[in-house]
Amino acid sequence: MGVEAQWLPGISVDCVIFGFHENQLKVLLLKFLKSPVWALAGGFVGVEEDVDQAAARVLEERTGLTDIYLEQFYTFGDLARNYRATEEHRDVNAAMGRSEEEFAWLSKRYITIGYYALVDYSKVHVNPSGLSDASEWMDVSALPKLFLDHNRIVIKALEALRQRLDDKLVAFELLGDTFTMSELQVVYETILGKRLVRTNFQRKILSLDILERIEKKYTGGAHKAPYLYRLKS
Amino acid sequence: MGVEAQWLPGISVDCVIFGFHENQLKVLLLKFLKSPVWALAGGFVGVEEDVDQAAARVLEERTGLTDIYLEQFYTFGDLARNYRATEEHRDVNAAMGRSEEEFAWLSKRYITIGYYALVDYSKVHVNPSGLSDASEWMDVSALPKLFLDHNRIVIKALEALRQRLDDKLVAFELLGDTFTMSELQVVYETILGKRLVRTNFQRKILSLDILERIEKKYTGGAHKAPYLYRLKS
Repeated sequence: MGVEAQWLPGISVDCVIFGFHENQLKVLLLKFLKSPVWALAGGFVGVEEDVDQAAARVLEERTGLTDIYLEQFYTFGDLARNYRATEEHRDVNAAMGRSEEEFAWLSKRYITIGYYALVDYSKVHVNPSGLSDASEWMDVSALPKLFLDHNRIVIKALEALRQRLDDKLVAFELLGDTFTMSELQVVYETILGKRLVRTNFQRKILSLDILERIEKKYTGGAHKAPYLYRLKS
Repeated sequence: MGVEAQWLPGISVDCVIFGFHENQLKVLLLKFLKSPVWALAGGFVGVEEDVDQAAARVLEERTGLTDIYLEQFYTFGDLARNYRATEEHRDVNAAMGRSEEEFAWLSKRYITIGYYALVDYSKVHVNPSGLSDASEWMDVSALPKLFLDHNRIVIKALEALRQRLDDKLVAFELLGDTFTMSELQVVYETILGKRLVRTNFQRKILSLDILERIEKKYTGGAHKAPYLYRLKS
């Protein structure tokens, strides 16, 4: 089947996959096959597929991840999103041995629909496949120059995450099932990029009435052990 | 010039234009030429145009409005966004006397990028042109069945507006240059769809330190006249 019968022209989806590890917000990046270029997990939209479905499928195909929190945040459609303009794209295509038809089809502006994914880092086992030969979690504040405008897409995803931090309770998607108050505070601080006052943070979170306190973390030295919390179901 | 050389295939922009009048949040709708169908101000994206530029151009072409607050909020790409599926679209095209080429080109799924616009109702003089023969401000809570999924697009725009109410100070875009505290409160209440406690609202707004109190609204009976405010520049 030709590319034109299979995919919508000029449209793609890109997934910014956030995870939280060692007190840092990380983004999962993929390296193009036989190329030094790192990029977000992206792909095209099938002719018979909703864009939300496309984002979930791309995420699964590129990383092996299924059934995770995924939310559209912005669509990038500047004229400059033109693969022709990039040396790196020519190199990537050559390295991948793409056909003339595929190359011509790819050498246009792509309007890309951005999604962010929030994953529990400890549960994730990434399995890059198809277009990538490596994956890596990179610190969001220390990314290399990524493919095309993917650095800008990460920045915009982080802005969206900040805006939705209170409404959508996104922070909890980045944590395990149980967590201490200070673990939760560090997630908030990392996303917001600023320190929070511990007592104020705790009061605010508890006032939302969404947490359940479950047990002491350690059995010994109980007077010093932090409480564990989980989201009320 | 053929449609394919001029426009990106399968992509459109739609503008949800909000205004505030008589204590109600309104949406500006356009009626398709020689058709009973109402729709948002929408159009295509030029081959040599950023999507943000396209949204501003469409807004100007369809309504005569320029230089107004416009922000992307969501992209709609379900399979069901297929003009073929709608009787109303066939009628609209027939009424407009579109060519076979245009009709074939339009008879596909369109992924549409949604923008909301916030306008000062009192300053707006709408000038529908081209594809429309009428325009009307309709109460956002009492819309008729609109073209395609445009009702859903309005609902999603309103959700985005609510989320950004505090961050972006969007409420002020809907008011004139000066306003009373109770006018401001009604805008907030209308967007949020709920009543707010007057003293709490006033304290919260004033604590943001963004308003400048300028003068009494009336010269007579000064003890009863409300203060006027404007945004600090």
